[in-house]
Amino acid sequence: MAIKVTVWNEFYHEQTNEKVKAIYPEGIHGCIAEFLGKEDDLVVRTATLEMPEHGLTQEVLDDTDVLVWWGHCRHGDVADEIVERVKTRVLEGMGFIGLHSTHKSKIFGALMGTHCSLRWREIAEKERIWVVERSHPITQGLPGYFELPHEEMYGERFEIPAPDELLMIGWFAGGEVFRSGITYQRGYGRIFYFQPGHETFPIYYDENVRTVIRNAVRWAAPLNKYEPVVAGLHAPEPLEKL
Amino acid sequence: MAIKVTVWNEFYHEQTNEKVKAIYPEGIHGCIAEFLGKEDDLVVRTATLEMPEHGLTQEVLDDTDVLVWWGHCRHGDVADEIVERVKTRVLEGMGFIGLHSTHKSKIFGALMGTHCSLRWREIAEKERIWVVERSHPITQGLPGYFELPHEEMYGERFEIPAPDELLMIGWFAGGEVFRSGITYQRGYGRIFYFQPGHETFPIYYDENVRTVIRNAVRWAAPLNKYEPVVAGLHAPEPLEKL
Amino acid sequence: MAIKVTVWNEFYHEQTNEKVKAIYPEGIHGCIAEFLGKEDDLVVRTATLEMPEHGLTQEVLDDTDVLVWWGHCRHGDVADEIVERVKTRVLEGMGFIGLHSTHKSKIFGALMGTHCSLRWREIAEKERIWVVERSHPITQGLPGYFELPHEEMYGERFEIPAPDELLMIGWFAGGEVFRSGITYQRGYGRIFYFQPGHETFPIYYDENVRTVIRNAVRWAAPLNKYEPVVAGLHAPEPLEKL
Amino acid sequence: MAIKVTVWNEFYHEQTNEKVKAIYPEGIHGCIAEFLGKEDDLVVRTATLEMPEHGLTQEVLDDTDVLVWWGHCRHGDVADEIVERVKTRVLEGMGFIGLHSTHKSKIFGALMGTHCSLRWREIAEKERIWVVERSHPITQGLPGYFELPHEEMYGERFEIPAPDELLMIGWFAGGEVFRSGITYQRGYGRIFYFQPGHETFPIYYDENVRTVIRNAVRWAAPLNKYEPVVAGLHAPEPLEKL
Repeated sequence: MAIKVTVWNEFYHEQTNEKVKAIYPEGIHGCIAEFLGKEDDLVVRTATLEMPEHGLTQEVLDDTDVLVWWGHCRHGDVADEIVERVKTRVLEGMGFIGLHSTHKSKIFGALMGTHCSLRWREIAEKERIWVVERSHPITQGLPGYFELPHEEMYGERFEIPAPDELLMIGWFAGGEVFRSGITYQRGYGRIFYFQPGHETFPIYYDENVRTVIRNAVRWAAPLNKYEPVVAGLHAPEPLEKL
Repeated sequence: MAIKVTVWNEFYHEQTNEKVKAIYPEGIHGCIAEFLGKEDDLVVRTATLEMPEHGLTQEVLDDTDVLVWWGHCRHGDVADEIVERVKTRVLEGMGFIGLHSTHKSKIFGALMGTHCSLRWREIAEKERIWVVERSHPITQGLPGYFELPHEEMYGERFEIPAPDELLMIGWFAGGEVFRSGITYQRGYGRIFYFQPGHETFPIYYDENVRTVIRNAVRWAAPLNKYEPVVAGLHAPEPLEKL
Repeated sequence: MAIKVTVWNEFYHEQTNEKVKAIYPEGIHGCIAEFLGKEDDLVVRTATLEMPEHGLTQEVLDDTDVLVWWGHCRHGDVADEIVERVKTRVLEGMGFIGLHSTHKSKIFGALMGTHCSLRWREIAEKERIWVVERSHPITQGLPGYFELPHEEMYGERFEIPAPDELLMIGWFAGGEVFRSGITYQRGYGRIFYFQPGHETFPIYYDENVRTVIRNAVRWAAPLNKYEPVVAGLHAPEPLEKL
Repeated sequence: MAIKVTVWNEFYHEQTNEKVKAIYPEGIHGCIAEFLGKEDDLVVRTATLEMPEHGLTQEVLDDTDVLVWWGHCRHGDVADEIVERVKTRVLEGMGFIGLHSTHKSKIFGALMGTHCSLRWREIAEKERIWVVERSHPITQGLPGYFELPHEEMYGERFEIPAPDELLMIGWFAGGEVFRSGITYQRGYGRIFYFQPGHETFPIYYDENVRTVIRNAVRWAAPLNKYEPVVAGLHAPEPLEKL
């Protein structure tokens, strides 16, 4: 059965910055949905900030196996009610792939519990991503490292909880390092944060970046049927005779 | 230099339930502050829900190294603004010790990112706590296991992120198990959650329970001086010549 | 492509103890190979201690994707050379499923680096296994808990490295708890240790136990093609111009 | 009570390479013992490969709280019996600080269970070590990053188990990254591996490197009294009435 993916994007820069629009004429969401949509086992839809309920109605979310998120400068415009809805779905098993500046989104912060701040610089320096965990579903098919000629530097200290798994570390020509590919589990949901993706560079056309995102979507798809224990389970009868 | 501890308690049951008042005439906070206060290296104050700002003014929190928290049925009455203030202090390095029903407090949920639900039963069954990590500051001086003749059962599945460290596992006579002593790091803050403490039993008089809480307070005291990176650190100049 | 499984068994008790022979007339390996062999995506062979090279020739190991191991009282009779061969294959990506008393095998000890000792008792008490991680490939299809009416008690403190993932915790009627289902990664290899399986009880006929082992075999199958770095990779030329 | 430290060194290069001898006239062990010895709470001794039993008699090891180890090209000359003795002491609670090329020592490999291979290059390039975990005993007093003008490059993929804690990541001018400061627990013993320390550079005179090693020695000192469970604990009587 196909994995149902929703690609959510702020879709602000692409409409206000000519340079970004030239790189992503269909929006970052359009670009990502296009390559994911080529896969036989994925069914992809998109949603953006300006849509009613940001395109994330309860129906859409209930019908989403994995949510991919790109946001940058309008995190504050995402309604708290929608954030809560998304968080609940993640805890119920919906996968969440956070890309680049999503580290400062309300939803990522809510799932992490920390500020998720980092060190940054925009001078188009080179990044080299090293794969430190080579036997993981998300890193299948990747070389030992791959390069992005121009990226925004994201550097440590990245204020996040210790990741459940550290898959990739980034090296930046300007001198910094970063935990560029990390996973977490929250409730039934599997979360992958992937650092590359500054909007003024054609990052989401890179073949290695695409491989990571394809792998991550498959890895994050829900497993066991969710049994909600939101309110706590009162089990008044002991299982043993006392 | 002494570690400054603030013991926060809902202080509701002790004022409304005769049975609880008889066990904790000074309140759970009074009981805990009393044994912690005997230590030469600890300076202890208390705060309760009904105080202005729940006793957690910015001054009190800025002057607190470790916050111990007991709450149960009035989690919703803790003002969101105070929760945010406490969370910020934890990320800045203030230790947080969450006791028993604190698992459902707003602050613990905000730091964890999950529902923190669990299975439960109140029939006064026996609990036996096994120490699985015997070489940890928090478990110093503990025997291989210790028993609480009567406790409220807390059982798996405990909906929490995978703990950074699992120190203790509880066995309940009614048939359940529970991850009873767990640690997390969030930002600069060190967090310890400890399951025992149902208000109708004299749990906080137990010598092993007291040992755990003393050890936990010392373990959670802040280390490095906090350098706030709340807004993200823009480092426009590369460290290398490019 | 099918996953190639080798089920290795000491095959001692079944040949010397009538009670065990009656439960496992084909040996524990025969029982496990039989139910695994029913799966379309698995190809299963067996090997036992008494075979030349314990049935684990270089050819067999090179042709094995996942090795399942049951050993108990003849761990010392496994040749060090074979242990080294198996360890090397695990680091190259061969999955390893250690069952029950395998905790004290040379190979498990070599992969763990600790004594792997535990507390134990053989009085046929009941065990209840709780699933603490319900969104994991290995726990798919399991109920919240399942019971084994009679098992050998394995209790904490289990002297192992902190598991990468804790999937199941066992409750024993006699009063102990145990980390009954745990995973590790070593090199490219994925390791799952599963506590149930005392030879005098029909544990490997239990449907939940069988579900776990089937899931574990699929989970442990190799992913990325292994690039050996055994001797260390000398990279004399920098990737950057210096 | 003072922490008893033994600094063990291969002491080969210092005696055969004039360049190294000039940097470390007292040997690397002499240099490290000298700065550790200045601390009021540490009592330091040294031992080298060529001593009888490599200076690691049972008496010395029983009287050692923390063992610091530097080895490089003569790992094979460390007697297996001594390695076993050291491993047993670590499992009993003796701390172990592995420096630089110790990653390929028999003892580190035995505690890890993997090859511990890595990528390397000796062209005296610059390293910058970033502190990713700033609220840890080992990183107390360190700046956000520190530089070593010349070091041997150690790069990912470092074939180790996922560290219990990742404290530091190294950036190399030649383009690589490395998990430069990592901790593990094995049995009662606390282990810290620290990557800097190529013998042809005055690394162990660096103030930040010295801060790390001092902190690590204190962090690794034993806690709870060890109760040996090497052979497994048979507990024939259940704790509960059955």
